[in-house]
Amino acid sequence: MTRPAPQASAATAARPVEALFNPASVVVVGASEDPRKWGNWVARGALRGEARRPTYLVNRRRGQVLGRPAYPSLDQLPEAPDLVVIAVPAPALEETVDAALAAGARAITAITAGAEAGRGGALAARVRAAGAVLLGPNCLGVLDSGEQLELVPNPLPPGSIGLISQSGNLALELGLLAAQEGLGFSRFVSLGNQADLDATDLLDEFAGHDATELIALYVEDFRDGRAFARSAARAVAAGKPVVALAIERGGATTRAVRSHTGALASDGAAIEAACRAAGIERVHTPRQLLDAAQALLRCPPSRGRRIAVLADGGGHGSIAAAVAAEAGLELPELDPSTAGSLRSQLPSGAAVSNPVDLAGGAERDVHTFDRIALQLLGSGTIDGLLITGYFGGYAEYSPAMQAQELHAAALIGDAAGATGRPAVVHTMYPRGPAAAALREAGVPVYESVEQAAKALARLAGRSDRGDRGDHSDGRAHEIPSLPAPEPLVAGDGYESARALLAGAGIRFVPQRTVASAREAVAAAHELGYPVALKALGLLHKSDAGGVVLALAGDAELQRAYAGLQRRLAPERCSVERMAPLPDGVELLIGARWDYRFGPVALAGAGGVYAEVLRDTAVALAPLSQPQAEAMLRGLRCAPLLIGARGRPPLDIPAAAAALVSLSRAAAAHPELAELEINPLLVTPTGALALDARFVRAKVNQQEPTECSSPTAQSSSRSASAPAA
Amino acid sequence: MTRPAPQASAATAARPVEALFNPASVVVVGASEDPRKWGNWVARGALRGEARRPTYLVNRRRGQVLGRPAYPSLDQLPEAPDLVVIAVPAPALEETVDAALAAGARAITAITAGAEAGRGGALAARVRAAGAVLLGPNCLGVLDSGEQLELVPNPLPPGSIGLISQSGNLALELGLLAAQEGLGFSRFVSLGNQADLDATDLLDEFAGHDATELIALYVEDFRDGRAFARSAARAVAAGKPVVALAIERGGATTRAVRSHTGALASDGAAIEAACRAAGIERVHTPRQLLDAAQALLRCPPSRGRRIAVLADGGGHGSIAAAVAAEAGLELPELDPSTAGSLRSQLPSGAAVSNPVDLAGGAERDVHTFDRIALQLLGSGTIDGLLITGYFGGYAEYSPAMQAQELHAAALIGDAAGATGRPAVVHTMYPRGPAAAALREAGVPVYESVEQAAKALARLAGRSDRGDRGDHSDGRAHEIPSLPAPEPLVAGDGYESARALLAGAGIRFVPQRTVASAREAVAAAHELGYPVALKALGLLHKSDAGGVVLALAGDAELQRAYAGLQRRLAPERCSVERMAPLPDGVELLIGARWDYRFGPVALAGAGGVYAEVLRDTAVALAPLSQPQAEAMLRGLRCAPLLIGARGRPPLDIPAAAAALVSLSRAAAAHPELAELEINPLLVTPTGALALDARFVRAKVNQQEPTECSSPTAQSSSRSASAPAA
Repeated sequence: MTRPAPQASAATAARPVEALFNPASVVVVGASEDPRKWGNWVARGALRGEARRPTYLVNRRRGQVLGRPAYPSLDQLPEAPDLVVIAVPAPALEETVDAALAAGARAITAITAGAEAGRGGALAARVRAAGAVLLGPNCLGVLDSGEQLELVPNPLPPGSIGLISQSGNLALELGLLAAQEGLGFSRFVSLGNQADLDATDLLDEFAGHDATELIALYVEDFRDGRAFARSAARAVAAGKPVVALAIERGGATTRAVRSHTGALASDGAAIEAACRAAGIERVHTPRQLLDAAQALLRCPPSRGRRIAVLADGGGHGSIAAAVAAEAGLELPELDPSTAGSLRSQLPSGAAVSNPVDLAGGAERDVHTFDRIALQLLGSGTIDGLLITGYFGGYAEYSPAMQAQELHAAALIGDAAGATGRPAVVHTMYPRGPAAAALREAGVPVYESVEQAAKALARLAGRSDRGDRGDHSDGRAHEIPSLPAPEPLVAGDGYESARALLAGAGIRFVPQRTVASAREAVAAAHELGYPVALKALGLLHKSDAGGVVLALAGDAELQRAYAGLQRRLAPERCSVERMAPLPDGVELLIGARWDYRFGPVALAGAGGVYAEVLRDTAVALAPLSQPQAEAMLRGLRCAPLLIGARGRPPLDIPAAAAALVSLSRAAAAHPELAELEINPLLVTPTGALALDARFVRAKVNQQEPTECSSPTAQSSSRSASAPAA
Repeated sequence: MTRPAPQASAATAARPVEALFNPASVVVVGASEDPRKWGNWVARGALRGEARRPTYLVNRRRGQVLGRPAYPSLDQLPEAPDLVVIAVPAPALEETVDAALAAGARAITAITAGAEAGRGGALAARVRAAGAVLLGPNCLGVLDSGEQLELVPNPLPPGSIGLISQSGNLALELGLLAAQEGLGFSRFVSLGNQADLDATDLLDEFAGHDATELIALYVEDFRDGRAFARSAARAVAAGKPVVALAIERGGATTRAVRSHTGALASDGAAIEAACRAAGIERVHTPRQLLDAAQALLRCPPSRGRRIAVLADGGGHGSIAAAVAAEAGLELPELDPSTAGSLRSQLPSGAAVSNPVDLAGGAERDVHTFDRIALQLLGSGTIDGLLITGYFGGYAEYSPAMQAQELHAAALIGDAAGATGRPAVVHTMYPRGPAAAALREAGVPVYESVEQAAKALARLAGRSDRGDRGDHSDGRAHEIPSLPAPEPLVAGDGYESARALLAGAGIRFVPQRTVASAREAVAAAHELGYPVALKALGLLHKSDAGGVVLALAGDAELQRAYAGLQRRLAPERCSVERMAPLPDGVELLIGARWDYRFGPVALAGAGGVYAEVLRDTAVALAPLSQPQAEAMLRGLRCAPLLIGARGRPPLDIPAAAAALVSLSRAAAAHPELAELEINPLLVTPTGALALDARFVRAKVNQQEPTECSSPTAQSSSRSASAPAA
């Protein structure tokens, strides 16, 4: 990347990004009469905003296009263009951009495709030097529904979602899904190759756009991942939820990404860590994106995981209860007062536990639904409501029932609003009039119960993390800054790793390095038996059979030493005091440098279980002590640390402190691709490192260096951007 | 349960169950003019089959109903009735059933609701004594679309799915979802309270029904779970996939089930084990049920997990690849010959790796899709194809494109048929003409890519298990029979458990029971140091601090003994030779008696990780050796057993043999609710039990005793039913 790093965020703020969305004039270069060409689609879209702003078409060969005069070139326009949309063949791209800049364009949207179009930084540098901005190339265009700007080949429904996408067809699918849910788009930009403007720039721009209430992204390449996360955190803090459909690098996915917009996706765990840090809702499919958007746009913030299920029919209630539990929600028993009240209002076959089953009660009176919904939401003992099954279908009985059901739908929305608690509906009739009335009343409607349950679980997850729309806790998401790099680590072995980490304050088991059996015995006497003996110079000592534990005396130690020499012939060995293994639990702590997001810290079940069970937590490094403790307490093996089943509680703060120290060391050493302690023995009275290793970064791992090179770390715009 | 147990299966076969579906005549008792009443809905449904069979209406008070003469009572009909549908108030149920039997009815469908209607076995016993069958009470009715029998309140689309449901509204939702997918129902029965006929009886009946190609169930109460599983296995062996929407007992779900049809759901793990044993496809929601049905009805059997993704647009391809990998599918690189062939046919921007991205190639020629689909499916290196995204939308461009796309859809179906490999499609336009053409051509169409990927994964899962539609491997699903009960286990402590399991052939660590420090030291001398010391008489010795490990000599042992006495004051202790813990991996093996499915065996990660990690496999007991080995190899911790990362492989056959022995002991001792060895130490040369326990069944746990009481085990119809 050649863009100037310092204060880029401020620089972006001063650049005319808004000219992409509300230009004083629009010019389409390459406007065409041929309905199979982009130049035709975009020109027709541009002309739909003709009443709003001067709109010019440029075509080298024709005097007229789509019934308007066509100008032969940009320098012949009657006025300086503001936004220039370029839909010319790839070879003509660069000269057309230069012509647009020469004509005074503030913003350029380069639709022109071609695998290499606009690669390298020269074109973008010229755009920046001219004080302009460039979207694309190889993009689908830009849309602002409030400004009647439709520079895209297909229409999208209007609404309050700002969409930033690196894929065109995906935006079409999102548009179709949004329309089904009664949602739409305030703005849409297709990122293309991100030669100049990238997802982060557009995110900043959307965060300040009043008509945009939620920002949705499909991203394959985050570029400077921390800058992206900081922008997202600012948008979230400004009350605009961010939902990201982000795909992972690795295996088949990577191959796909390499072939698309020339981008590389970041690794999944790092994306996950960045999203969590920034308060981004991560999704994996278009449907999940719209399901999340619907819940976030229509529901009040959730206060927790306790929900009630309301159904008219026991099967639906039972299934919803099971699906909700699977999604991580809790279905508490109703409080006696609410249960008693329900019992008095419902037929005898009804269930007034949780799930509540009206048992046909709504066939007699559809308003049973809104009355019970209000009581449940207002009971104070639940945080949300899932209505499932038949509601939405009573309209089919008679016009009178339809009128009642529409009214009931509005009252369900009122109940959610009045109690400040989310209600979501799964209905068998998602295209019916009552479903539309529910959406109108601010109640999300889903076609399947699993979607509805996951929506409530997503809202509850935000409450867990404090990502509440009302920001009542005043907590902002913070993306950690990187420390200044420390001097490069010397050496490559266990001793170097140990020295680095011990220097960072991590306690290691007492050890001596030895080069003979005699030295080993002397070391053991110094340390005290029993000892462990390790062959040095192997990355995975334990896997190679290079570790012998619990040697109780000289003879045993000598035998073990001879055995190691016979099998592995290590130049040196390490004699270590045997750790109190039965007293503790082994963890793995580590960090790795991600291509886009920089250092990512990891904690997990350790010892032999580390790779087998994949019980890990990740977060952007460096960590704070509370973050590190939260990571450890979130592991599946956490009950072993907390002291479940009669065991003594282990020293989680000490283990977390070691994780914090390691994460700082990793963040200060970008020359290390991986840094790890496995195992870290956590006992009731401390945490003791029993082994350590690092892997140096290969040169090409640091290639896109904005956040992973030593020089970029302290000077990138991300590190220096002011917190929101 | 009062039904006679012996040879019930054979008895059912001889009973006139088919009279429910193709009766010589139909009578509706309680037929009504009131359009709000069941007696009206069912009477109108019955009259739609008037041309097919004599149809009579009975109403006590009116001479005419729905324009037909109404008979005042069953004994005044002009002929003996074959099928009698009862829709009278609950108090009149019993007398109406008796009247129907007296009039000669062979089958009775009791729609009549009321929480207690038909409870107890007296009514069902009278029906059986008369040689008739009873469906319900508290059911929604019965439908056979081929026989024009519509004794249900709402119509369902016709098709080839046989549906057995314990919930009415759920059947409605399944009907709506099926219609969207171009599917429908050959038969539907609503089970109601299962006073006489239960899910197992109907499953047997459907398995023999030619027009039923797939059997779908929503079940809350399996009754005799093993009999159900055997019937399902027979249906699967007969080429009819069985898809079951089954909910679990536990927490909120249980409360729901208690309130519905008076039934109790079985526990989730036992259901899972029974479904796996029987080859049943288990689902958790209505949408999952139809998604599975669509794939099973339309696709050829899958041969494995290797799939190709085909998209027109890189975003869709990337997302599908990630979602497919998450679903457990593999996306291999295309073989060079196929990749080269694709490269020569596609535009330069296209990706010919996997996913394949046409990069707009289909806009020029929609048949690119079917041509590439055929090449991919025929390449021999993939087992299935996932087409995702835009296909289905080219029809929107022009009538000519629509015609081409419809033809391409048919050819995609041909490609799947010709190659015998499944192709499934996710399209943004699931309601468009090309989607309909795909379904018509035998290609499942899904609205979201996650549904499509899961469908392919489900088919691949069947290939893993050998559940192939072509039964080429000749393997039938076998539901294990229970052995004759052995004499009740005496005592309750560790020593009793140890004696039972050692008697079953499981190797335990050498041990002596002692009652004083002096005896302990003597025992240690006999066994050899180091030893472990356990306090006896505690269920969870380790959790209570009742186990001291690695005592190296007399003094240490005496100190430990004194410590145990001080803290826990056990009457007796166990001195055991210290096991070679570092050489092995600890597992948990156990079994528990499930309420409906009898003994279920379990294997999992052991020691302190057992409850924390929930890494377990379950199967119906007793197990065979290959089953037990497969369970162990399927654990997440299996790499530790197999010998990953330089470790020696452990003795899986020995561990599996211990699991087999334990499962047999559990199956022979229904008086034990739980039986467990934790840990079982698996070493390179064997498996050694280090502890054992059991929990006696409470009397009320055995209440619904068909398969869990000692007497029922060897005599129930399930145990004696002939294998299919």
